[in-house]
Amino acid sequence: MRNLYVVILMLLFQLIFSPVSGQEDSLTIRKIYTEALSNPVAYHNLDFLCNKIGGRLCGSAQAAKAVQWSKKVLDGMGLDTVYLQPMMVTHWERGEKETARVISGKAGNHNLHVCAIGGSVATPAKGISCVVVEVKNFEQLKALGRKNIEGKIVFFNRAANPAPIYTFEAYGGAVDQRARGAMQAARFGALAVIVRSSTLAHDNDPHTGIHHYADSVRAIPAMSVSTNDADSLSKWLKTDPTLKLFLKESCMLLPEVQSYNVIGEIKGTEFPKEVIAFGGHIDSWDNGQGAHDDGAGVVQTMEVLRIFKSLKIKPRHTLRVVVFMDEEYDQRGAKVYATEAIRKSGAGLEKHIAAMEADRGGFTPQGFSIEANEEQLAKIMAWKPMLLPYGLWSIAKGGSGVDIRDLKPLDIPLIALVTDSQRYFDYQHASGDTFDKVNLRELELGAAAMASLVWMLDRN
Amino acid sequence: MRNLYVVILMLLFQLIFSPVSGQEDSLTIRKIYTEALSNPVAYHNLDFLCNKIGGRLCGSAQAAKAVQWSKKVLDGMGLDTVYLQPMMVTHWERGEKETARVISGKAGNHNLHVCAIGGSVATPAKGISCVVVEVKNFEQLKALGRKNIEGKIVFFNRAANPAPIYTFEAYGGAVDQRARGAMQAARFGALAVIVRSSTLAHDNDPHTGIHHYADSVRAIPAMSVSTNDADSLSKWLKTDPTLKLFLKESCMLLPEVQSYNVIGEIKGTEFPKEVIAFGGHIDSWDNGQGAHDDGAGVVQTMEVLRIFKSLKIKPRHTLRVVVFMDEEYDQRGAKVYATEAIRKSGAGLEKHIAAMEADRGGFTPQGFSIEANEEQLAKIMAWKPMLLPYGLWSIAKGGSGVDIRDLKPLDIPLIALVTDSQRYFDYQHASGDTFDKVNLRELELGAAAMASLVWMLDRN
Repeated sequence: MRNLYVVILMLLFQLIFSPVSGQEDSLTIRKIYTEALSNPVAYHNLDFLCNKIGGRLCGSAQAAKAVQWSKKVLDGMGLDTVYLQPMMVTHWERGEKETARVISGKAGNHNLHVCAIGGSVATPAKGISCVVVEVKNFEQLKALGRKNIEGKIVFFNRAANPAPIYTFEAYGGAVDQRARGAMQAARFGALAVIVRSSTLAHDNDPHTGIHHYADSVRAIPAMSVSTNDADSLSKWLKTDPTLKLFLKESCMLLPEVQSYNVIGEIKGTEFPKEVIAFGGHIDSWDNGQGAHDDGAGVVQTMEVLRIFKSLKIKPRHTLRVVVFMDEEYDQRGAKVYATEAIRKSGAGLEKHIAAMEADRGGFTPQGFSIEANEEQLAKIMAWKPMLLPYGLWSIAKGGSGVDIRDLKPLDIPLIALVTDSQRYFDYQHASGDTFDKVNLRELELGAAAMASLVWMLDRN
Repeated sequence: MRNLYVVILMLLFQLIFSPVSGQEDSLTIRKIYTEALSNPVAYHNLDFLCNKIGGRLCGSAQAAKAVQWSKKVLDGMGLDTVYLQPMMVTHWERGEKETARVISGKAGNHNLHVCAIGGSVATPAKGISCVVVEVKNFEQLKALGRKNIEGKIVFFNRAANPAPIYTFEAYGGAVDQRARGAMQAARFGALAVIVRSSTLAHDNDPHTGIHHYADSVRAIPAMSVSTNDADSLSKWLKTDPTLKLFLKESCMLLPEVQSYNVIGEIKGTEFPKEVIAFGGHIDSWDNGQGAHDDGAGVVQTMEVLRIFKSLKIKPRHTLRVVVFMDEEYDQRGAKVYATEAIRKSGAGLEKHIAAMEADRGGFTPQGFSIEANEEQLAKIMAWKPMLLPYGLWSIAKGGSGVDIRDLKPLDIPLIALVTDSQRYFDYQHASGDTFDKVNLRELELGAAAMASLVWMLDRN
């Protein structure tokens, strides 16, 4: 890239990307971005959370540490209030490193890259060894029926569809295999399931995530396999349909554990009882560092408050960051928060005016997805010209997020930060979800986007 | 991320992102995207170019290999024409690994992460060892004058500005130090320059790039230092203003070398003499693999032709990919291509109707920057609603690119693919510009974006 070219570009982009007016909103948004992009506090916080605390499934010692760390960070920010909101959480552990091994005279013996699916029961201590039935979906499973499934391992191998642009669509179209595969296969007498990871990446990293059993059927072990190994297993099954798969995992469900949401606030100067809430979830799967899912959302929403403090902006309404516990397993944090918010609202003690969640990774923000009535929506959509210079082009009606959806009875806008989704499912719920996958500026831009919307919500 | 949430998201995003109409254009664009996202040909091509050939500065053996490889790939695509367009190119080599060492009784001795700036002369074989003057810009240099500069090493240490959203602006505001630092410092009798890398990253990777001497002043050695080490050097200079810096590099300017642009075409069915040209540059700096700059642009523009072939779309105009040689050093490839295009246009042998360049990295595409007259611009802008569902939100007047700017006399739209710029300057011209930094889907989306625009240009 050469010099003259760059200077021309610079001038043109200055024209295109400069705030559209000299009004206070525009000027403040520009200040918010400059502050976010000049001070890597959120990035350093994420570094600590990922590299010093690490993966932090609810109920784990790391999750407890992460709660203490969150409180300490918020305590250090000079906020008006910092407090814990208690709840009990599930404590599941995967135990020893899982094993899966193909045993075949024709196809050879091969170890697979696997991990237990969240909430799975253990295999017997000596493992399970038996033949495999590959299926693409529940219809195929049903068509095969008990006579073909009973006493076997079911291999769910429907690949995520690469065609949709927004990768949550690909994920949404494949994740039923992980979430309900064991439950469905157990109905037909399967001994265990092994499930292709719900990702568009072609690699050796298995992806975990929660799954659910049904009370009416036996809980059977559920395992996730990397996409590369799923392709290989499928190929080997064609060579040798009678190959055996040996599976071993030693997951445990331990007694429930006391845990907490962590909440920090700047009190509103005009409407202290009226709350704009925003947050991410501090828990993560145990196999990675929970960097994009959802350490990023936690440090970015903390950063919103830091930006307001640093710019000495006194909000009219109370700004509240909620560091949610247990999004991944049972959403106990979200439930406790919503229950309390609805109770206080009913008692006239507190009123939410909006809630926002950041849980789609620390990638370049593209806008906001908004669950709201038409009037609320129209109000926010009117701010588009103010936000477009910052690349926030996608501001539209849409789903919000798991940690705020229970606030629906409050009849307020529920907002999700929308980010560039291309890399999200490469890492989500896998060992690859580590700090080094997060780009400083992309993370900062997400925080600035949310701080800008919070500014608009507070002032308009 | 949970299941119900994902299903709701999926449905909503299907609504938002689905093509806006059932018309042929919309349907074809959807097919183009599906083809690009389902067949990782461009990605595998880039893998080979980066990992089997590697960095390929014009004049090098690797650049010659890359030309042969480009021709072989195009030959294998069943195009109507593939040919080479010859030119002579400069052959500069950096020689042995460069050295820079701080020598100070107070601040200690420290090796710095450095690399020669492209086109630099060598230091004397025994190196240069002398005191250092830190400056932020040419004004400061001038103010210090010959009495403070003569016989010293000038350290240019103005950091890129993190505040602009589009990082080309930050780069554009800092790169004069690299491009003209040596020339300016030599005017005041400096012995050498060491320049802070023009990147927003805080790391140990020095960034090279071309620089220029002036005929009227002595050519002095120019070196780039990583941002972390620039910060350290500045700190040490405060501790010990008399510290010495030892610099050694052994760059060479060798005889010019025969090289080539590589061109491949699908002939137009209705207007075979009318050309839509698009390309990237095959040369790269030698310290990395030239993955984002600009292997990505090369494989993406080749992919445009592959997509047309695969979908059996017969273009009305001739579609031409141009694999440009020597963007980084002297733009000889661009000059030869433009000269020939203008000559043929004058002779009535050929007429360009548009030219497009991909040289901003293989990141998520955001749109197109267009140099064109108002009428041409309005025509392309009218396609916005067709492209927005694919995240191409930024379609606007702006600079195009170094390899096509010389086509300006043809009075045609000159178009640059605009990508998410946040990570580009982390890697550009540095050892970090490697294949593993390129995301499969981001790369594919860029190819699909260009193929879609080429479709629109061809049909409308």
